[in-house]
Amino acid sequence: MLSGKEVAQHSSRESCWIIVHGKVYDVTEFLDDHPGGSRIILKYAGKDATQEYDPIHPPDAITSNLPADKHLGPVQPDTVEKVEVKITDEEKARLERVEQRPSLDEILNLHDFEAIAKEVMPVKAWAYYSSAADDEITLRENHAAYHRIWFRPRILRDVTTVDFSSTILGHKTSMPIYITATALGKLGHPDGELILTRAAAKHGIVQMIPTLASCSFDELVDGAKPGQVQFFQLYVNKDREVTKRIVQHAESRGIKGLFITVDAPQLGRREKDMRQKFEAEDPAEVSKAGNDKVDRSQGAARAISSFIDPGLKWADLKWFKSITKMPLILKGVQCWEDALEAYDQGMAGAVLSNHGGRQLDFARSGIEILAECVQHLKEKRGLTFPNEKFQLFVDGGVRRATDVLKAVALGATAVGIGRPFLYAYSAYGPNGVDKALQILRDEFEMNMRLLGAPTIKDIVPSMVDASNLSSHMVAVPDDKLFSSNYEGIQHAVLKIKAKI
Amino acid sequence: MLSGKEVAQHSSRESCWIIVHGKVYDVTEFLDDHPGGSRIILKYAGKDATQEYDPIHPPDAITSNLPADKHLGPVQPDTVEKVEVKITDEEKARLERVEQRPSLDEILNLHDFEAIAKEVMPVKAWAYYSSAADDEITLRENHAAYHRIWFRPRILRDVTTVDFSSTILGHKTSMPIYITATALGKLGHPDGELILTRAAAKHGIVQMIPTLASCSFDELVDGAKPGQVQFFQLYVNKDREVTKRIVQHAESRGIKGLFITVDAPQLGRREKDMRQKFEAEDPAEVSKAGNDKVDRSQGAARAISSFIDPGLKWADLKWFKSITKMPLILKGVQCWEDALEAYDQGMAGAVLSNHGGRQLDFARSGIEILAECVQHLKEKRGLTFPNEKFQLFVDGGVRRATDVLKAVALGATAVGIGRPFLYAYSAYGPNGVDKALQILRDEFEMNMRLLGAPTIKDIVPSMVDASNLSSHMVAVPDDKLFSSNYEGIQHAVLKIKAKI
Amino acid sequence: MLSGKEVAQHSSRESCWIIVHGKVYDVTEFLDDHPGGSRIILKYAGKDATQEYDPIHPPDAITSNLPADKHLGPVQPDTVEKVEVKITDEEKARLERVEQRPSLDEILNLHDFEAIAKEVMPVKAWAYYSSAADDEITLRENHAAYHRIWFRPRILRDVTTVDFSSTILGHKTSMPIYITATALGKLGHPDGELILTRAAAKHGIVQMIPTLASCSFDELVDGAKPGQVQFFQLYVNKDREVTKRIVQHAESRGIKGLFITVDAPQLGRREKDMRQKFEAEDPAEVSKAGNDKVDRSQGAARAISSFIDPGLKWADLKWFKSITKMPLILKGVQCWEDALEAYDQGMAGAVLSNHGGRQLDFARSGIEILAECVQHLKEKRGLTFPNEKFQLFVDGGVRRATDVLKAVALGATAVGIGRPFLYAYSAYGPNGVDKALQILRDEFEMNMRLLGAPTIKDIVPSMVDASNLSSHMVAVPDDKLFSSNYEGIQHAVLKIKAKI
Amino acid sequence: MLSGKEVAQHSSRESCWIIVHGKVYDVTEFLDDHPGGSRIILKYAGKDATQEYDPIHPPDAITSNLPADKHLGPVQPDTVEKVEVKITDEEKARLERVEQRPSLDEILNLHDFEAIAKEVMPVKAWAYYSSAADDEITLRENHAAYHRIWFRPRILRDVTTVDFSSTILGHKTSMPIYITATALGKLGHPDGELILTRAAAKHGIVQMIPTLASCSFDELVDGAKPGQVQFFQLYVNKDREVTKRIVQHAESRGIKGLFITVDAPQLGRREKDMRQKFEAEDPAEVSKAGNDKVDRSQGAARAISSFIDPGLKWADLKWFKSITKMPLILKGVQCWEDALEAYDQGMAGAVLSNHGGRQLDFARSGIEILAECVQHLKEKRGLTFPNEKFQLFVDGGVRRATDVLKAVALGATAVGIGRPFLYAYSAYGPNGVDKALQILRDEFEMNMRLLGAPTIKDIVPSMVDASNLSSHMVAVPDDKLFSSNYEGIQHAVLKIKAKI
Repeated sequence: MLSGKEVAQHSSRESCWIIVHGKVYDVTEFLDDHPGGSRIILKYAGKDATQEYDPIHPPDAITSNLPADKHLGPVQPDTVEKVEVKITDEEKARLERVEQRPSLDEILNLHDFEAIAKEVMPVKAWAYYSSAADDEITLRENHAAYHRIWFRPRILRDVTTVDFSSTILGHKTSMPIYITATALGKLGHPDGELILTRAAAKHGIVQMIPTLASCSFDELVDGAKPGQVQFFQLYVNKDREVTKRIVQHAESRGIKGLFITVDAPQLGRREKDMRQKFEAEDPAEVSKAGNDKVDRSQGAARAISSFIDPGLKWADLKWFKSITKMPLILKGVQCWEDALEAYDQGMAGAVLSNHGGRQLDFARSGIEILAECVQHLKEKRGLTFPNEKFQLFVDGGVRRATDVLKAVALGATAVGIGRPFLYAYSAYGPNGVDKALQILRDEFEMNMRLLGAPTIKDIVPSMVDASNLSSHMVAVPDDKLFSSNYEGIQHAVLKIKAKI
Repeated sequence: MLSGKEVAQHSSRESCWIIVHGKVYDVTEFLDDHPGGSRIILKYAGKDATQEYDPIHPPDAITSNLPADKHLGPVQPDTVEKVEVKITDEEKARLERVEQRPSLDEILNLHDFEAIAKEVMPVKAWAYYSSAADDEITLRENHAAYHRIWFRPRILRDVTTVDFSSTILGHKTSMPIYITATALGKLGHPDGELILTRAAAKHGIVQMIPTLASCSFDELVDGAKPGQVQFFQLYVNKDREVTKRIVQHAESRGIKGLFITVDAPQLGRREKDMRQKFEAEDPAEVSKAGNDKVDRSQGAARAISSFIDPGLKWADLKWFKSITKMPLILKGVQCWEDALEAYDQGMAGAVLSNHGGRQLDFARSGIEILAECVQHLKEKRGLTFPNEKFQLFVDGGVRRATDVLKAVALGATAVGIGRPFLYAYSAYGPNGVDKALQILRDEFEMNMRLLGAPTIKDIVPSMVDASNLSSHMVAVPDDKLFSSNYEGIQHAVLKIKAKI
Repeated sequence: MLSGKEVAQHSSRESCWIIVHGKVYDVTEFLDDHPGGSRIILKYAGKDATQEYDPIHPPDAITSNLPADKHLGPVQPDTVEKVEVKITDEEKARLERVEQRPSLDEILNLHDFEAIAKEVMPVKAWAYYSSAADDEITLRENHAAYHRIWFRPRILRDVTTVDFSSTILGHKTSMPIYITATALGKLGHPDGELILTRAAAKHGIVQMIPTLASCSFDELVDGAKPGQVQFFQLYVNKDREVTKRIVQHAESRGIKGLFITVDAPQLGRREKDMRQKFEAEDPAEVSKAGNDKVDRSQGAARAISSFIDPGLKWADLKWFKSITKMPLILKGVQCWEDALEAYDQGMAGAVLSNHGGRQLDFARSGIEILAECVQHLKEKRGLTFPNEKFQLFVDGGVRRATDVLKAVALGATAVGIGRPFLYAYSAYGPNGVDKALQILRDEFEMNMRLLGAPTIKDIVPSMVDASNLSSHMVAVPDDKLFSSNYEGIQHAVLKIKAKI
Repeated sequence: MLSGKEVAQHSSRESCWIIVHGKVYDVTEFLDDHPGGSRIILKYAGKDATQEYDPIHPPDAITSNLPADKHLGPVQPDTVEKVEVKITDEEKARLERVEQRPSLDEILNLHDFEAIAKEVMPVKAWAYYSSAADDEITLRENHAAYHRIWFRPRILRDVTTVDFSSTILGHKTSMPIYITATALGKLGHPDGELILTRAAAKHGIVQMIPTLASCSFDELVDGAKPGQVQFFQLYVNKDREVTKRIVQHAESRGIKGLFITVDAPQLGRREKDMRQKFEAEDPAEVSKAGNDKVDRSQGAARAISSFIDPGLKWADLKWFKSITKMPLILKGVQCWEDALEAYDQGMAGAVLSNHGGRQLDFARSGIEILAECVQHLKEKRGLTFPNEKFQLFVDGGVRRATDVLKAVALGATAVGIGRPFLYAYSAYGPNGVDKALQILRDEFEMNMRLLGAPTIKDIVPSMVDASNLSSHMVAVPDDKLFSSNYEGIQHAVLKIKAKI
């Protein structure tokens, strides 16, 4: 067994050992291949890197990337010097803000979690969760699109009891939503995605397990209650054998649906994330960054995604059908032509999604694509929605039960919600997610009553006016001279001057 | 007769007596059933709760909810310790602002009342009156929708005299407006809705008495002048016998129209109201609120509305016709399909309304629904509007006589105005409402002249351009980077630097 | 001849004499009839009121309103005590700002005059000129409407010389604009409208003389150069004999066109003007204002306009034709139906105008009405525009030659410009107007070159894209929660912190 | 050889000599003809004017404008007094900001260069580069128009390798962009346009050499690598012999395309530039400016452009064909009618452009004109785009590769980018341009993958939704009273007050 002292001697680019979870690895030859750059590893050369490693790597990242002969075995725990984490002033201020969180009683809606999370999360974690592609137009459009849809509520229907339970791929759900896959869950809370597994169980909804979870797949399946339905989101590996192993393992563990991500041949550039990194780091070190061969500027996303296959194509779907019996759903369909193709190729459904605005900026919102797909799949194949055989889902920008109800009215089977749950546990831990789901339940009950819809089936297209959904308005640039000259009228004001 | 001292001994959860209007009640067993939670009652355990009780309860709330054996009878007035109300700094500042109100002469329009009311009302009262559902999109859309309608005025018509009197359900009104029902009138002024009764008499318009008035129904009817026309707004009670008694009592007292609220099977969540409550309260107490079994977070609305029947349905309308001869109008119709059904079922009219934006957010504005109803009821039943047999009303968002004239041009018989009158008396008492109505009269006279319409009948559809009414525009999200780079052009400025 | 001392003894409501232009008037009995209220007169009781009187009364107002026996004759000038005008701090600050005006060289466009005028004009004068009706939506729409029209410029046309001269009612103009009628010109400069008369002469354009000029009609005609073309704007007096006298006098003095105002049966409420008055006055006096019988709150507009006949109607046009041979143009036409009627009744043209947004709020812009009229008059009467026989003009919101060119492309003969010239001389006196016209000439030359139009006739409908002109967009209310959570992306910033 | 002392004696309006690049010129008689006014020359009378002269004059400006007998020959270098440039406080602050620039690593997109350039460029230079015509509506619309176009990405296409190379006029380019012509390159960096020549070579794209370059044409051609393709942008001189000489010289030097500017018969008024000048200069001197006969207010643009022929017309194109075999492209076409004419007259293409918003304000964006041209040229001549025979280009407002991809999808052969490269080298010198092009490459690669387009040919019209492209929306003016009364809802906030 190695001692901490011995490890500590390998602290240079020439010989670089690190400790992760009590085991020692020789990463000297791996330095330049590290997707996140060598610099961050060298910072922990000869030391224990576990704390930095954990939230942004799947648990088996190091073992599956390093050849066996570089696994140097366990280290004597008590001989390892603790990595002293200096608490910066910024971190101190953050911890004070954590203390000042309002009580959960005062959290009234999903927006509230985001507002608090922004205050209490570490800067890097917030940047990773909240950022999106380029100018983040699509990120915001995802939410804005729902605002172009208005309700046409019905009256005098008996809504003494309202029932918003439904089914997804044949499985019961207490609400027409599911927890969609998001990466690096431990950035927000040490328990990561496991929090979502438990909340899903408690509230009777489905969790979609992400490929890039901070928890391992098996942890999340093990964390489920008996009978709890889980889906799996798949990034397809360049090495199809790896993919096959993952898929078949998922199936063997009881996963009920395989959501194949098709909108991310390469993970998007999220400049807010990238910018935050520069700002958060020591400016002196940044200036030396030129020495680092790896393009460090791509943020966490690029670091963790180099395995994804940009060559995935329609022809591959046959192969997927050959290796699994799970229903296959394409996640990231963005026009009716591809939805139609998915249907024709026997998929069980499609998630109309732009990856939360994190991939192609100016991609349209899922809800807009939904309206387009419903129309064209009816015209071309006579399908009506919601449809049991070919189910349409949307995600992105959802913050209210009313958003979900609009999607349901337009034909969605269910709606995926991601970031809000991350913000909920980042701000309040497990109780936050519990409260978030409770808020949604309350909103569903209230709004279905107000819509005059006792059940999900009663929510029909004529209950919404979506006639402006595909209008993407940009105002003509302001006439600055005219506007600055115009002196706004004022309402009456108190006679403050009269008081002396 | 009980003494104050005796009452004061029952000041705990185990035995809780309170005094309201000089009478003692044992509310021990009622504590957990109180819609507003037990905490607020316990604050007054053993004390006189009248001041807190009055503005948010209908006068008979306590007697009709407590069994007779809990009515312990009168207390000796001089033995009751006065509840000392600590005047907080905030309240002191508010009272100073009351002193600083501009004179009524300086109030130029209905917006002005709101601006002053916001300054001088107690925070809770303002929150209850001004708040609306969820993101308050509909609250604002109600007003914004009028801004999508433009005038096409006519010239060279003799407008020496203009007459804006009209009729509502056959009754004369001096203007095509009525005072619509709003709850908890005493929050803004101790005289509550009675102020509106008197102003309606003076200005020759109709008041609609609310179910949830702070004054009792009979007070408001008694307050009317001989011959003064009043309508009644009804929340239908789960107990139909109660409803029947109320309706028949209203009819017997001379009420001329029954407006059955159909958009509120459950009263909406008004987060601004809920948030205000948390902010206004002692943070220390809030943290202990977990002990309170009742969900205190729902604000005043939920507290007073638990009796409303969410099971009310079309089939019930027959029953209403069987118990009263008053004309029946549905209040809260929100699409042409339901307006048509109301007509077919023999209603006398419909109020196209979303409850002032307080129920379902993203419900459309009354004025937009009006245009839809007029079109479809013409197509389906050959009706033209305004129509004597089936009258259409709108409410929500009205601030100017021009708003009313737009509705009239599109076919409305009259327009309901609510909040502006509450703000008027909250800011200036009875004189405020008088001034508000005078402002409207002036605006009607001016604008009918400018429109070229000597009478209400001369206001026809071609006088408005409503072609953009159903356009719900959402601008594409801002390009923050481009915009922050763009350096606005400036107009010429004074050479301030030249001055030394 | 009266002495100042004698006059000074009549300084009460019981006996009130005032001096105007060296003559004494007994206004005791007139006090309560004064459209501006008695209070302002009483302030000058027994004193010389000339300075206050001048800018807001036409010169003959007092002589034509007071019976002859109240004209008490001249006063000995040297015996009159000077009315000491206290220079307030606010006025001192204003005079300093006057000194700080940038040089005229630095004035680049018409907006600049407004920016400077706002700084250097007395508050009341600015309020009167700049204010408009109600919420001033139409005021701003007047300008905004031009921003919905875009150019389709043509290339490779010889624009070595461009000629933007044209004709109006058969009279030559150096540019397709005219100076439209605006009231109370002396509020901005002691020479009032005479400045415009002279500038019009110098630049070869037409001035429209207003009924409510501060200078007398004859002064303005006398101030013209030989052969200079002037039009006259008429408010029709309730007393048609007065009107007849005015019209025939105008014709006899050589006026070339009579513009009958038809959009002002009553002058609009301009709340900014009204509010400014309250703010500018001594709050102590305001509180006593209740003693004053006259509604002082209507601002200058109401004070000077009570003579206007709200009974003017189409049938009266025949009478106008019977009393004058001048071409008759209706000023204030606001829909195609009335433009058609004007044509059918033999008018020489129509000014499509909403009175600078000062009358009916939500009236549409002149430029929008123009497009409508051109379309319908072609359909109904086969007219094409610009048309010699029936000429269409627009006014309101024009700030650039490009605005004018848009109107010309759509069929206008010429465009009226008002406020910008008032701002120009209020800020810089006569030189300001001269510069303003020079700026317009430069803009015409530049922009006709860039449009590829060597002459006004070359500016044709296909040079503009006006397809969005009648779109009145109102954005859906902002989602405040979502927006305040969204953290805008930032561009790179300087490393300021790095510097110590 | 003249001595500095001798030259220094000619320092007045009566006799004015200046030194430029070591040679002496007698400019006495030229003073009043100088397009930039006499004042700026007189400032250097008797002195060395080189530093001021260089960035805003093409190198041969003085020799070709002054008669030979005014060329007084060289001066003895060591006898010339150095023009002492006082470093103002403002300049000191600017130089400090230069030191504080973030490292190039932190520059993430083209917007970043602009943000930094604004901080570190001299005020005048920034004003010249960034300004545009009138209210700069078109400047901003150029970018905004791209935001009305959304993507319809395709999935499951093999995008392992993406190739964004293409051809322009038959010449290979590594990306579908070119560096378009912009004037006065040395304002931003002493090496001027030569920086762009070298960057174009390195990145395999085409540079269009501007007529008004700060570097001479031959310098820029000499600076090219063997085989490097360059185009030439031509302002047509009133003297056609000059034009002929220039064109044939360009052809003889190997220029591969002649882009004749047709949107600038006169260079536009850029008020931001003009205003900046006034602000940057000594206010005392400005007040004396009246003495200067030349209109100094037109900024740099007018000063350098008086030679441009406003008489250029379609008929001249034949002549161009007679003097050169280079493909002719019209730069500045703004409607389909002119694009059609250009095609019919045998041009090789057209640049749909409004000159970066610097000419006619309210001209439409190039991308909008593109959609119009593609539609009409298909209807009238059966052309499809991109088209080899008649190529369409757009420029203006481009900041992202996604903007370019939208243009390509709509039919453009390539897109011109100008200002961003100027900002790049103004902020960071040659490395800046290199980084800018690298960023574009990265963006092309990423976004073509995300679009599902392995090559430029795969980018087809159905990949974009441009249905709102021609919608020019102007929001109805704000209801200031309503808006200021509305109290925005808030999300949960930290309990900051609780902390003491």
